Amino acid sequence: MTGKTPSERKELIPKESFSEWYDNVLLEAKIADDRYPVKGFTVYTGWGFSVAKRIIAMLEGGLEANGNEPMQFPVVIPEDSFQKEEDHIEGFSGEVFWITHAGENELERRLLLRPTSETAIYPMFKLWLRSHQDLPIKMHQTCNVYRYETKATRPLYRGREFLWNEGHTAHVSYEDSEEEVKAAAKIYQSVYDRLGLSYITLKRPDFDKFAGADYSIAFDTWNPDGKVNQIGTVHQLGYNFAKAFELTYEDANGEQAYATTTCYGMGFGRTLAATIAHHGDDHGLVLPPAVAPRQVVIIPILFKGKEEQATSYAEELYSKLTDAGIRAVLDDDPRFNPGDKYYRWEMYGVPLRLEVGPREARDRKATLVRRDTFEKTLVLESELVEKVHELFDAIFMNLRDKDQAKLESLIVDAYDMNQLRVYMESRMIVRVNWCGDPDCAFNIKDQVSGEIRGTRWDEEEKPTGGCVMCDDEGKYVAYVSRTY
Amino acid sequence: MTGKTPSERKELIPKESFSEWYDNVLLEAKIADDRYPVKGFTVYTGWGFSVAKRIIAMLEGGLEANGNEPMQFPVVIPEDSFQKEEDHIEGFSGEVFWITHAGENELERRLLLRPTSETAIYPMFKLWLRSHQDLPIKMHQTCNVYRYETKATRPLYRGREFLWNEGHTAHVSYEDSEEEVKAAAKIYQSVYDRLGLSYITLKRPDFDKFAGADYSIAFDTWNPDGKVNQIGTVHQLGYNFAKAFELTYEDANGEQAYATTTCYGMGFGRTLAATIAHHGDDHGLVLPPAVAPRQVVIIPILFKGKEEQATSYAEELYSKLTDAGIRAVLDDDPRFNPGDKYYRWEMYGVPLRLEVGPREARDRKATLVRRDTFEKTLVLESELVEKVHELFDAIFMNLRDKDQAKLESLIVDAYDMNQLRVYMESRMIVRVNWCGDPDCAFNIKDQVSGEIRGTRWDEEEKPTGGCVMCDDEGKYVAYVSRTY
Repeated sequence: MTGKTPSERKELIPKESFSEWYDNVLLEAKIADDRYPVKGFTVYTGWGFSVAKRIIAMLEGGLEANGNEPMQFPVVIPEDSFQKEEDHIEGFSGEVFWITHAGENELERRLLLRPTSETAIYPMFKLWLRSHQDLPIKMHQTCNVYRYETKATRPLYRGREFLWNEGHTAHVSYEDSEEEVKAAAKIYQSVYDRLGLSYITLKRPDFDKFAGADYSIAFDTWNPDGKVNQIGTVHQLGYNFAKAFELTYEDANGEQAYATTTCYGMGFGRTLAATIAHHGDDHGLVLPPAVAPRQVVIIPILFKGKEEQATSYAEELYSKLTDAGIRAVLDDDPRFNPGDKYYRWEMYGVPLRLEVGPREARDRKATLVRRDTFEKTLVLESELVEKVHELFDAIFMNLRDKDQAKLESLIVDAYDMNQLRVYMESRMIVRVNWCGDPDCAFNIKDQVSGEIRGTRWDEEEKPTGGCVMCDDEGKYVAYVSRTY
Repeated sequence: MTGKTPSERKELIPKESFSEWYDNVLLEAKIADDRYPVKGFTVYTGWGFSVAKRIIAMLEGGLEANGNEPMQFPVVIPEDSFQKEEDHIEGFSGEVFWITHAGENELERRLLLRPTSETAIYPMFKLWLRSHQDLPIKMHQTCNVYRYETKATRPLYRGREFLWNEGHTAHVSYEDSEEEVKAAAKIYQSVYDRLGLSYITLKRPDFDKFAGADYSIAFDTWNPDGKVNQIGTVHQLGYNFAKAFELTYEDANGEQAYATTTCYGMGFGRTLAATIAHHGDDHGLVLPPAVAPRQVVIIPILFKGKEEQATSYAEELYSKLTDAGIRAVLDDDPRFNPGDKYYRWEMYGVPLRLEVGPREARDRKATLVRRDTFEKTLVLESELVEKVHELFDAIFMNLRDKDQAKLESLIVDAYDMNQLRVYMESRMIVRVNWCGDPDCAFNIKDQVSGEIRGTRWDEEEKPTGGCVMCDDEGKYVAYVSRTY
C-alpha cells in the first residue's frame, strides 16, 4: 500500500514457468504469504489484499444495487442445524472443521466452521418470513468459509479457508428465482468484465451441480497451467431448500406456500488469482487500473546538483494527479536508484510509471510508461490528467482483448476420443458433442486428463455429430477441461 | 438497505426502559438478530451491517492513510504458536474455542480460533523483518475474534464472536512506537468524533492493562444503563512481544536489535451499540448522517385524483438528491399510508424526511423534517440540496453537543467512600483521588458497584486530596465506573 517498502532486486522468473512464477509473484508483489504454519491457510498481505478489497467493493456495490442487504452471520453452525439438510450434508459433511471444546470445557453440542452458510441462514430466514409481503428476502455476505480440502492446496486457488461473497435469496415464485439467477449472473459477469477476465459461463452437468440445487451455473476461466479455474457459481435451488427448512409464507390468498430460493458465491482468492495469472508477465503483475491500489507511480530521475528541480516538479505532479482522484504514489526514496524502483513497481503491476527528470521539469512535460506494453509517451503537464485517463482505458482494453483472444485460442473442437485425448494433453479447453448420459461423462473422465464441465448457459450451441464417447445422438455441446 | 420491507406498526418502547428499548430497536431497525441458535453469536442484519460497514470504512481509511497495510490472517492459530507467548496465554487461554477434528479425523495438533491475532501475526512479522530498512511494518485487519465469554453476553456489547479491526505495528525504536500509539489514538478518536460520540481516553491501571503491554490506553464511553462501554484500545507493547517472538532486525551498524511493537483494536459491535444507545430516542434510531445507509427518505403524500402530481415531483426530487451524492430513498409503496412510513423510517433513524404533497408539487417546494428534533422546514426546490447539507451539519452538531453534555453531566467528583458509593448507585462516572496502590483499587471494587478504569491519558489531572480509599497522598485522579 505505502509501497515504499524496500526489497532487493532479484532475477526475474519467466511466466512460462508458471508455477514458479506464480509463487514468486505472490511473495514479491506482496499478494499472499503461504508460510503460515497451518496447511491450507494463507495470509493475504498488503498489496494483494488491497486489490482484493477493490474486487470485493465492486461486487458488493452490484449486489446492493440489486437489493441484497449486507449481513454477517456467525462462522459457527451447530451440528443439529447442519444435519437438517440431508442433501447438503452429503455435500460437505466429510470436509468440515469441528469445534469440540471451549476453554477447559467440552461443548455439549459440537460446532462446525461453515463450509457455506445455508444451514446458518435458512433458520433465520424462517424467522423473518411471514407473508408474501416480506418477499423477496435478499442478502449477501463477504466472509471466509472453511473446507477440509484433501486435494493439494494452492494459495488463492484452493485453501482450507477461503474468502468469498455469498448471496442468498428467497422468492415468491419459481419465475422470480429464475430472474434472480439471471440478475446474479449478470452482476458476476460485470465484475469479471471490469477485471478484463475472459471466461465461459456453463451450466454444470446434473452430476456436478451444487448438492440440493435444481441447476448450477458456473464461471470457468482459463489458467496458464491448462486447468480451468472456477471463479463463481450461481444456483437455482427451486423449492428444495425451502422444503428442507420449512421456509413457508402466507400467500395473497391466505394459503401457506413454499418460497423458492437461490444462492451464489464468488471466490475472491480465485478471482484475484485469475487477475494475476491472466494479465501478469515476466516482470510481475500487470493490474487493471480499476483495481490497482496505486495507479501511477512517479519516479524522479535525479541528476547531481539538479535534484531540487525534478523533486519539486514531481511533487507538483503528484498533487495534480491526487487532486484528480487518481491513486498516485511518489517514490522519492533516496536509498534506491531508478532501476531498482522500476523493478519494484513493475513487479507490483502499477499501470503507469511517470518519469520526471530535469529536462521534463524544465519543459513542464512528463514521460508516461505503460506497464502492459512499456510504451512511452511524452505529455505536456497541462494534458497529464486527461492522458492518464486515456492510457488507463487503453491498458484496460488491451488486457481485456488479449485475454479474450487467449481464451478463444484455447477452445477447440474434438469429434472423437483420440482427438480429445490429444487436445487434453496440450491442455486445451475442448468442445465435444455429448449424448447427455452421465456414464459417458464418467468414461471421458476416466480416459482423458479432464472432465465435462458443462454446457453453455448464456448461449445455445447445437451439437454437430454423435457423442464423442458412445457415438449416440449428440444432445449437447459440452466443454471438457482439466480442473483445479 | 432497500428499506422498503414492510413491517407492522407496533407500540413504541420508551428509551427510559433502556434494556427493552435496545432489544426492540435491534430487531425493529434490523440491526442485529440475537435468535441465532448458538449462545453469544449474533447475526448482523441489513440496516445494522450497512451502518457498521460505514464505520469500518472510516477507520480503514484513517489507518491506510497512516500507512497500515490491509491484510488478512487466518482465523485459526496452532496450539504451539499460541503457547509461545506465556503472558499472552495467561490473558486468553481459558477463553478459546478449540478445533480438534476435521472431517472424520482427529487433528494431529489442535487449532484454536483467534481471540486476538498477535500469536498469528508475529511469526510472519519475523519472516518479513530483516533489516532496519524493513521498518516500520504496519498492518491492519478487519475480522472477527472469538472468546468464550463466561460473563453474560449481550448483542453487540459482548459476544463470543466479535467484529473488530486490529492494527499491529513494529518499529525501529521505542520513540517510534510511542509516536504510533499517539497516531493510532488520534485515528480512533477521529472515528468516534465523526459519530458524535463522547468518551474519555484513559490510561488503564497496570493491573488492568493488556497482557504483555507496557501500558494500555482505552476509550470508554457512557451507556444509558450506567455502565461504561470500552469502544477501543491502543497498546504500547514496547520490547515485550518482540522479545517473546524473537522479532529482531539488523540495525544501521550491522548489529541485531529488537523491534518495538504496538497493537490496537476497535470493536465495531460496541461502537455501533454506542451510536445506537447514545443518539436513539423513543421513536428508535437517530443516525449521524455520515453513517446513515439512507440519509433522506422521500414520502409522497397522496390525495385522491392528485397522485400523479406528487409522485412525479417526488421522483424528480429523488433524482436531484441522488445526483448530488446524497443517499436518498423514495418510499412510494402504495400498501402503506404515510403514518406507517413515518413510523418505519423514524425507527431506522434516517436523518431527514422529505414530505411531498400536491401543494409542495404545485409550489415546487418540499417539507424537510429533522429526525433528531422533528423540526420542519419548508424549502424551495432550487435550494433543496444546499439545505439538506446544512441540516445534515446541524443534526450532526446537535447530536454531538448533546452527547458531550450528557457525558459531562455524568462525571462527578467523590472525596470519600460514602460519596463514591452513593454516586455509583446513581450510576455516575466518578472521579476520585487515588494513591496508585492496586490494593486500594481492589478494595474499591469490593466495596462499590464499580471499579477504577484508569487515569486520563490525553490530559493531566492533578489530585486535590488524599486517596479516596486509604487517605494516603493522592497521586492520580482516577475514574471509577460500572463496566460491561
